[in-house]
Amino acid sequence: MASGWRGRDVISILDFTRGELEELFLEADKVKMALRRGGLQRRPLEGKLVALAFFEPSTRTRMSFEAAAKRLGAGTIGFTGPEGTSVEKGENLADTIRMLDAYADLIVIRHRYEGSALYAAEIAEAPVVNGGDGRQHHPTQAMIDLYTVREAHGRVEGLDYAVVGDLRYGRAAASFMLALTIFRPRRLYLVYPPQLAPRREVVSALERAGVRFERAELEEVIGEVDVLYVTRIQRERFPDPEEYERVRGSYRVTASMLEGARDSLVVLHPLPRVDEIDHSVDSTRHAWYFRQARNGVPVRMALLKLILGG
Amino acid sequence: MASGWRGRDVISILDFTRGELEELFLEADKVKMALRRGGLQRRPLEGKLVALAFFEPSTRTRMSFEAAAKRLGAGTIGFTGPEGTSVEKGENLADTIRMLDAYADLIVIRHRYEGSALYAAEIAEAPVVNGGDGRQHHPTQAMIDLYTVREAHGRVEGLDYAVVGDLRYGRAAASFMLALTIFRPRRLYLVYPPQLAPRREVVSALERAGVRFERAELEEVIGEVDVLYVTRIQRERFPDPEEYERVRGSYRVTASMLEGARDSLVVLHPLPRVDEIDHSVDSTRHAWYFRQARNGVPVRMALLKLILGG
Amino acid sequence: MASGWRGRDVISILDFTRGELEELFLEADKVKMALRRGGLQRRPLEGKLVALAFFEPSTRTRMSFEAAAKRLGAGTIGFTGPEGTSVEKGENLADTIRMLDAYADLIVIRHRYEGSALYAAEIAEAPVVNGGDGRQHHPTQAMIDLYTVREAHGRVEGLDYAVVGDLRYGRAAASFMLALTIFRPRRLYLVYPPQLAPRREVVSALERAGVRFERAELEEVIGEVDVLYVTRIQRERFPDPEEYERVRGSYRVTASMLEGARDSLVVLHPLPRVDEIDHSVDSTRHAWYFRQARNGVPVRMALLKLILGG
Repeated sequence: MASGWRGRDVISILDFTRGELEELFLEADKVKMALRRGGLQRRPLEGKLVALAFFEPSTRTRMSFEAAAKRLGAGTIGFTGPEGTSVEKGENLADTIRMLDAYADLIVIRHRYEGSALYAAEIAEAPVVNGGDGRQHHPTQAMIDLYTVREAHGRVEGLDYAVVGDLRYGRAAASFMLALTIFRPRRLYLVYPPQLAPRREVVSALERAGVRFERAELEEVIGEVDVLYVTRIQRERFPDPEEYERVRGSYRVTASMLEGARDSLVVLHPLPRVDEIDHSVDSTRHAWYFRQARNGVPVRMALLKLILGG
Repeated sequence: MASGWRGRDVISILDFTRGELEELFLEADKVKMALRRGGLQRRPLEGKLVALAFFEPSTRTRMSFEAAAKRLGAGTIGFTGPEGTSVEKGENLADTIRMLDAYADLIVIRHRYEGSALYAAEIAEAPVVNGGDGRQHHPTQAMIDLYTVREAHGRVEGLDYAVVGDLRYGRAAASFMLALTIFRPRRLYLVYPPQLAPRREVVSALERAGVRFERAELEEVIGEVDVLYVTRIQRERFPDPEEYERVRGSYRVTASMLEGARDSLVVLHPLPRVDEIDHSVDSTRHAWYFRQARNGVPVRMALLKLILGG
Repeated sequence: MASGWRGRDVISILDFTRGELEELFLEADKVKMALRRGGLQRRPLEGKLVALAFFEPSTRTRMSFEAAAKRLGAGTIGFTGPEGTSVEKGENLADTIRMLDAYADLIVIRHRYEGSALYAAEIAEAPVVNGGDGRQHHPTQAMIDLYTVREAHGRVEGLDYAVVGDLRYGRAAASFMLALTIFRPRRLYLVYPPQLAPRREVVSALERAGVRFERAELEEVIGEVDVLYVTRIQRERFPDPEEYERVRGSYRVTASMLEGARDSLVVLHPLPRVDEIDHSVDSTRHAWYFRQARNGVPVRMALLKLILGG
């Protein structure tokens, strides 16, 4: 099958068609099965190098990309945070990317500024994968989220979804909502405090795709959905600490709240969580967030494999 | 030979029998010989991943585990210090361990709090190796120390030992004393300032095992022992800097002090040292601490090999 | 051909003869061709470990050594900056080097103090490569620079050179000038503000080697040279910020300044640059600094290969 994946940049989840994502999921299935049998027979990326340019700190994304690369036989180089790098000496992003492009076969970039990954992709000859930039784009997280929904429900499209928490600054939530313009939900509930409403761009994308969505309260929707996607509400978003304390209680999922949920309900969270999902939920059958985290490695392995060939 | 090592957690040196430790030492002998001949013929852990979760900084332990893993063909992922990790975002230890468990085949943890490694082992499906936690447990250091004594003397049991320095907060010293409940000394001298006396738990363990020990002064014991295990006395333990300066002089080993020592005396130190062992000692035949440090890699290779099979 | 490279320390560019450097360049040619064809057929350093001891931060040098080692099949261990290492606990350099010597097959060291690499080499049994120490020595950078000149002009000797910027504290500039005592230029212009004049040692080395050099202004020499080696002028060198602003303008290369340049002129820079080379230069045929950066990996691969054999 001719693939559009080879050598490709991964900037936004919106760059991909449903068919391409399904190709990725099939590849991830294969990888996952191989890992379960004790590892891959061959090391398809032996001799390749992946650069991890984490201008903004991250544990989960960085470590799962690193694990993915190494399980495929590739090496990694890179940095976390600007400290001790040439960026601190005043080097601009373009020159840093040119350096990484000279050293590696693929660049994963995380950066606080919107558009950094796209800019890097324009400069680099090597494929660039967005490991999270700005407020909206974290496409590989969205791929993992969709893959986990597919695993739980056998399909992604036509389900009832709620997305909960910080829909304004949380890039995982934004990417997930954008992904739902590709695999359209039956219904989509958005649950957020007024300060953390989704951005205009995300709302427009949902509208253009004809996705039906409405704002709702957490308690109302728990019984109405197949997927509950919860995200962290950061203290820093609230100038008034009391306001934060008040808001946070309303967006917190506990085991007792899930008593009226559908049997099929899966609770997702991009992690790390603080207390948006109470630990009482961990032992319910609805807790899929650890499985979701586990999917980080096989999905990213599939992605690297498709892009770098082998 | 059926081995109890496969898939096993390593939390405390007390979890192991004499037979199990001897099995480890034999494996370390083999590894050491292979390294001396230029490296292993095969790479038995090819395709495996070891996670290094160093919540507390460390160079020696971290780098020697990393070297051990890589010389066996395994990859490593991990972090040092909580900066830039999801722990800083408020994630609890359990979720961090679950993540590492999802990504890697074995987890090495170092943490300042007592019991962290045990807690991690209860959460993770992958084997957990304690790279040092709290004030007492640093089991792989104790394995290296015992192995070095065996190398120097041909045996571990029945020798005369002195342990010197911070017996209260130093986890290497505590682990070494605990290890001497498994391989019992003929005599054991403990040399420490009053503020840094061994903890109740360690004293009880020695008593229960029937180990004869007594407090002594450094100068008295130097001529009486086969093994002198020296550890660092940290300035931070003394509220009064003058008190520190006074104390420190009495726990410092110099070449001239070793003139009356037994021929067979070996001086050990878990390193890094500051000035507890004067550099004049380095060129004496008693200086075994660099050989002890060199044993870090083969002993940890043997350990990883026994646990992860291959 | 019998090679003097095997097992060798790399402390100063002056330790090497013209013939030895030419051997390195031929090896780099081979490596570069292999990389262009998609990587090396074999992984000649499989099972080897390279320690990267960066007491002083660096991105480019560290990452290109790491990339070089990994592309050859070797693993790497190491640290960047003294934070979180045993150096912070008061360990001296000698003990840290002994530890790395115990763990790895080759040590790359970067340190702010002159002579650190030589000192490390005296302690370690493993070969030591100077990744930059003090104000004068950065021999692998000089190797990359010479290799890039050779690539651009087909030869290194007998060309007209200018070296621009901080000739006093910049170790890349100093190493490059020292390298020109091995491959002698036809003419050598030195362009620097009075505060940043080359050190006595460098001047003496040039004199002893019979290299004709003279101080000149940037504008004067641009039309007269085949190689323009530009380096950064650091703000920190100027107690008076206004003085810095005034000086900096006179050592800045722009595209329009290059209009009267020889066709063959190549502009080099060890990078990172701040604004000593205007971005307008990037798209001219004279801009060779990115190619120079790209050469970092194949030249360092050739070096590791020659030293570690395989």
